[in-house]
Amino acid sequence: MKGEEGPRAAVVLLSGGMDSATALAVARSEGVDAYALSIDYGQRHRSELEAACRIALGLGAVEHRIVRVDLRAIGGSALTDESMAVPTAPSETIPPTYVPARNTVFLAVALGWAEVLGLRDLYIGANVLDYSGYPDCRPEYLRAFEALAGLATRAGVEERVRYRIHAPLLRLTKAEIVRLGASLGVDYGLTVSCYQADEEGRACGLCDSCRIRRKGFVEAGLPDPTRYRVLPPS
Amino acid sequence: MKGEEGPRAAVVLLSGGMDSATALAVARSEGVDAYALSIDYGQRHRSELEAACRIALGLGAVEHRIVRVDLRAIGGSALTDESMAVPTAPSETIPPTYVPARNTVFLAVALGWAEVLGLRDLYIGANVLDYSGYPDCRPEYLRAFEALAGLATRAGVEERVRYRIHAPLLRLTKAEIVRLGASLGVDYGLTVSCYQADEEGRACGLCDSCRIRRKGFVEAGLPDPTRYRVLPPS
Repeated sequence: MKGEEGPRAAVVLLSGGMDSATALAVARSEGVDAYALSIDYGQRHRSELEAACRIALGLGAVEHRIVRVDLRAIGGSALTDESMAVPTAPSETIPPTYVPARNTVFLAVALGWAEVLGLRDLYIGANVLDYSGYPDCRPEYLRAFEALAGLATRAGVEERVRYRIHAPLLRLTKAEIVRLGASLGVDYGLTVSCYQADEEGRACGLCDSCRIRRKGFVEAGLPDPTRYRVLPPS
Repeated sequence: MKGEEGPRAAVVLLSGGMDSATALAVARSEGVDAYALSIDYGQRHRSELEAACRIALGLGAVEHRIVRVDLRAIGGSALTDESMAVPTAPSETIPPTYVPARNTVFLAVALGWAEVLGLRDLYIGANVLDYSGYPDCRPEYLRAFEALAGLATRAGVEERVRYRIHAPLLRLTKAEIVRLGASLGVDYGLTVSCYQADEEGRACGLCDSCRIRRKGFVEAGLPDPTRYRVLPPS
């Protein structure tokens, strides 16, 4: 993308977790007018949606929409099926918190909104270093979605719009993400990462997401504002 | 796909219109166990969802799920924004009944469900001859989604599953679709194509979808069971 002008405005996927909050802060620091988009997909940790509202406001999004997509109807993930447990130990393979086709659903809705708004840029907090091995966070996946987007849309066909997916955290460690966000004024106390956060947004301290988050703060040498029910090992 | 074995079971996108009903009939005629999937996206013509239920039952789907995806939250189409009118005259360009990223959203949910079910085949009633020029019905789009699907999923990464999108009507005229469906026992009286069908499923007779449908029956020389409020020109 060298030599190309940066976006003026973009749709920013905002889950309510720390990565997407940091991605939003990066977009804002680049002068981007951010249209924040959260998906209420029936996630177990619904308090992340309230977190998303606070973050969108705090980081000055132009607009914030929450779109309902009922992924509980297909289940298949510990995040959308209460009968499946959220693991509390690391796994060698992709864990059951993986939600089938989640980022494809999210990016599809984001693409639709971008087209409605006349925008061609999408931001996502995808990351491939300190993460759970989800396939739809990898650069090859994101490139394939960019290719799809141009073929999928009226704007792509009639106006030859080339959609761009920005993943500013893609190759950062969690510690680097924490430092970057802190330098951009992200209040991580507003964010919810825990897969089984309670209604008040308190974290379990046991799941993958809590462990990775905790490790980020410890390695960054920054205070961790998370309200854990059990302090994760670090 | 020559030389490959046909699917045993598949997710079949079923809108409630005539094309997806015919695609389901084709899948059933090939001995496929069909998991029918309809998306309640806030479409103006909600009666197509009731039609989908009747069709799934009539054609012997193993299961039928309706998943809610609130595309009204992003609008941008005459089908999801009541303030935009459904055109009653043909257009040279892609008409406002185009729903931004609709098939990408639909296929994403279908992909998710397929992964949950352990299936790798998806059927869609996409067609590029007698249609409204929607970009996400074209073969190059469908191939790009197949490529994405393998990268997007745990099954694609851990088990190297290659997802396949079957679009058995892709290059048929509407008349050919009608003849094919009739030969397979599709009761088109159950289907709803009209973009502004009323609650009882009666068609306006004026929109693109009614005109294309009517033309199909006339050219096929078959009786048209549609209950039109105004008979479309043929």
